[in-house]
Amino acid sequence: MLLFEKHKELLDKATQAVFSRKFYAAYSENPKAYAEDGLAKAQAWYDAQLGNRFTELLQQDPSDWKGNESSPYTQELLNIHYPSFTDEQLIDNARACLSEWRNASPESRAGVLLESLERISKRFFDIAIATMHTSGQAYMMSFQASGPHANDRALETIAIGYDLQRKFPDHQEWIKPMGKFELNVHKTWRTMGRGIGLVIGCSTFPVWNTVPGVFANLISGNPVIVKPHPGGILPIAIVVAEIQKALVAGRYNPDLIQLAVDTTNDPITKKLVNSPEVKLIDYTGGNSFGDYIESLPGKISFTEKAGVNSVILDSAHDLNAVMQNLAFAACLYSGQMCTAPQNIFIPENGIKTDSGHVSFTDAAQAFADAVQAIVDHPKMGPGVLGAIQNIDTLQRIGNAIESKNAVLILDSKSVVNEEYPNARTASPAIIKLDAEDIATYGEECFGPVVFIIKTADTEESIALAKKLALHKGAISCGAYTTNENVKHNIAESMEEAFTPVAFNLTGQIWMNQNAAFSDFHVTGGNPAGNASFTDISYLSKRFVWVGHKHM
Amino acid sequence: MLLFEKHKELLDKATQAVFSRKFYAAYSENPKAYAEDGLAKAQAWYDAQLGNRFTELLQQDPSDWKGNESSPYTQELLNIHYPSFTDEQLIDNARACLSEWRNASPESRAGVLLESLERISKRFFDIAIATMHTSGQAYMMSFQASGPHANDRALETIAIGYDLQRKFPDHQEWIKPMGKFELNVHKTWRTMGRGIGLVIGCSTFPVWNTVPGVFANLISGNPVIVKPHPGGILPIAIVVAEIQKALVAGRYNPDLIQLAVDTTNDPITKKLVNSPEVKLIDYTGGNSFGDYIESLPGKISFTEKAGVNSVILDSAHDLNAVMQNLAFAACLYSGQMCTAPQNIFIPENGIKTDSGHVSFTDAAQAFADAVQAIVDHPKMGPGVLGAIQNIDTLQRIGNAIESKNAVLILDSKSVVNEEYPNARTASPAIIKLDAEDIATYGEECFGPVVFIIKTADTEESIALAKKLALHKGAISCGAYTTNENVKHNIAESMEEAFTPVAFNLTGQIWMNQNAAFSDFHVTGGNPAGNASFTDISYLSKRFVWVGHKHM
Repeated sequence: MLLFEKHKELLDKATQAVFSRKFYAAYSENPKAYAEDGLAKAQAWYDAQLGNRFTELLQQDPSDWKGNESSPYTQELLNIHYPSFTDEQLIDNARACLSEWRNASPESRAGVLLESLERISKRFFDIAIATMHTSGQAYMMSFQASGPHANDRALETIAIGYDLQRKFPDHQEWIKPMGKFELNVHKTWRTMGRGIGLVIGCSTFPVWNTVPGVFANLISGNPVIVKPHPGGILPIAIVVAEIQKALVAGRYNPDLIQLAVDTTNDPITKKLVNSPEVKLIDYTGGNSFGDYIESLPGKISFTEKAGVNSVILDSAHDLNAVMQNLAFAACLYSGQMCTAPQNIFIPENGIKTDSGHVSFTDAAQAFADAVQAIVDHPKMGPGVLGAIQNIDTLQRIGNAIESKNAVLILDSKSVVNEEYPNARTASPAIIKLDAEDIATYGEECFGPVVFIIKTADTEESIALAKKLALHKGAISCGAYTTNENVKHNIAESMEEAFTPVAFNLTGQIWMNQNAAFSDFHVTGGNPAGNASFTDISYLSKRFVWVGHKHM
Repeated sequence: MLLFEKHKELLDKATQAVFSRKFYAAYSENPKAYAEDGLAKAQAWYDAQLGNRFTELLQQDPSDWKGNESSPYTQELLNIHYPSFTDEQLIDNARACLSEWRNASPESRAGVLLESLERISKRFFDIAIATMHTSGQAYMMSFQASGPHANDRALETIAIGYDLQRKFPDHQEWIKPMGKFELNVHKTWRTMGRGIGLVIGCSTFPVWNTVPGVFANLISGNPVIVKPHPGGILPIAIVVAEIQKALVAGRYNPDLIQLAVDTTNDPITKKLVNSPEVKLIDYTGGNSFGDYIESLPGKISFTEKAGVNSVILDSAHDLNAVMQNLAFAACLYSGQMCTAPQNIFIPENGIKTDSGHVSFTDAAQAFADAVQAIVDHPKMGPGVLGAIQNIDTLQRIGNAIESKNAVLILDSKSVVNEEYPNARTASPAIIKLDAEDIATYGEECFGPVVFIIKTADTEESIALAKKLALHKGAISCGAYTTNENVKHNIAESMEEAFTPVAFNLTGQIWMNQNAAFSDFHVTGGNPAGNASFTDISYLSKRFVWVGHKHM
């Protein structure tokens, strides 16, 4: 209970924020707010990890040491090896500590978990460098996404999870008037975590996409097995180690969270997924394995899969500001965000702006110019684009350029990164298509590819964006219009496809960004995923209420 | 909004009750609190229905008129025919009113639904008679279960559903400090019902088990298709008609709720279940179809299936009071409740009571005597037992008696019902088994059969009850002990099987009863079902949040 009291104010603030949806950030996103020598120390720490065993985890008796990550910045192996375990070992360990954690009070669990966030925040720089060299994110995004933003998302799940578990009382005198007498029953209730949770991470956001499921399971009383992507282990390994240390400090078994490292040659995921004791599965990744997980009987799944994100261009006050905003959104981490815009729909008659009418061709060119300006900017280019996580992405760019009817407006190119001359980089290819080329733009083309699609009019743009979101999934949607009726139609149409819309964004905010405590990330209503960071169901499905009557 | 204001006080009371879990009942369970001539009028109304078309539903252009219910009290066909529709018609109709209902505010939806509860309450007597002559429940249970108790359960889902939809604001100014300036984004949020809901009813509790799913879907913005059991249409048809009338009074399309009548020869359920537009499925019934529904990809299901409910007898102050209570629980509606006790575990060394030690044989006999006293009581007998809904149940009793190692302690017999001499009745068969006869008592034996199982000791009783709950499911559990340690062990063991325990019940309360606003019915954690009346997930899974950003 002491830890709970220590962090109670933070929890209260987070709870207020999440239910009011006002701006809130528990951790500063500015590295300068943290230790002055943080980055330098982290660099040294990272260099010392290379070629060595990662020994921070408190997991005992590994059956092996594994790991074959490589850095998109150096294109060399990290040669860091992590303790590895069989699926049976992992399940046995989780089972062994299930009861102690379930029977801990929500307050005790919240206290330890909030303490672990504090520990994690002291490792933000290490996590940032680790994220850079696995995901290929640029430094600033690595710091923010895997550090403060991930911690905020974790805090959000703790706040909602704690709130829900105190939504009903733990006891009550139930007194029923029966005419001449009263029936008096003492009733008690408690929550019961459903069982072992498995959280399957991805390579592009190895921390941000993993911690919500981790903390949602833990606050709900479920032990967790974290199965990172074989290409993105180090950043989440630090997080897992810090949670383990916090558990031990709180006198709990560190096996309540275990890292389950595997390699692409010897995968362990399917075995874990099919263990009858794994009741909850969180997953970020491709559709085919995601659909498989969703279909498993007796499992409760929380998925984020692929989507096709649209931008609807109808009209704008200042096209320049629009294109700068959109170009940045498209360049950010080279389009390797699940929220990145892929399809920009522009009517064939062009768009109305405050400074006159702009033709389709000129609008497309303005976008290409804005992208080129970012790419060619010596500092912004590498700092915004980062590096390409997976070499297959380069192939995908080539395929898109060669697809039927594709007209290349701006070619993809590699971008010089002075600090990392071997970095695997690629700027966005911008490709013009017609509305009927839906076979190409109607599938997710993950990475730095933007399709500019010529439509008959805005109505067709809206219809196509809605159709794709409904049938292929969408996590984000951007729209630019100065017409209130059009705006209303876009909102209503995309709501019917369970897709949020960012209207008329310009300046320092982009459609890719979903802020903790305020923006729901993925609605859970279209094929892009069945769960939402962080709505009520994201927590409530992880535990059940059991009540007893006593006479 | 007017209807919402009209019923706001009721909604507030219900909300307070459900989150405090104190005793609350919005509708009196005593028929005397309603119209004095209610029963007589309902009898006349029912007689006028027999052999005629049921014309209260507001559904247009039926493709046929169907219905082949029969009364367990007369064993004759009701010959009431209901408008019937193809699955395509039903889906088309539901689709046509989806948007209007989704776009109505939660307040507007709550107002109309609360109004419909008021309308339904004026039909309690009709619904009671209709329930008697389809389910076979005795009059008092028919009145209470299908009337006030069902309305309370419906009100409970409205209260939670409304609360959840107002849990997050509908708009907020999001102001992020950015050092020299502020980022100001206007954000809006709304809930979106997931789509068409299908609610599949059962024959034993045609209203009580159906209305929670109906009202949960409607408050969440989802049109509903109600597929009653072919043997239990009339009671829910009245409810559906009253909701339709309330919808029309509120200027909504009555097709927001449709009754989908079919017959056992020409079933429609599987077609509806597999319609891609049906997103939500509520189901009460057998395991095999329930498991099938749970396995369907892209559907969200809420199931209540079979379970095996245990009673653990360890020790008691007053064995007489215990046995009277247990006997009533076993006799109530001839064991045709999903919460009825099936297995009574008694240690071979017997049990300790305040008036001395009672042997296994004497304890079993005391139970049999208490059952016999109810059965043979001229008024209580038929009034508690009711009639047998399905003729297959009689066969099941015979099979149980003839099962391996079965020792018959009390035979089942038919009970004279003076009002209905042709009633299909059967009193509980009481059968002694040993712990190793789990092949027999380890399966649900729906109907008036109680197994008394001789165990080595209470520890074995607990272990068996837990094992059955975990692997076969359980909705209720009774336990009698005067020992605090034993009580603790039972509570903890059954919690691990996600099963609530009723401890030491005597007097006017039975383990079969789960009260709205206070008791969770089914936990959703064991194989007896994946949903709970009414926890948070029961509502939160039916809609998603969609938020927009505006600049």
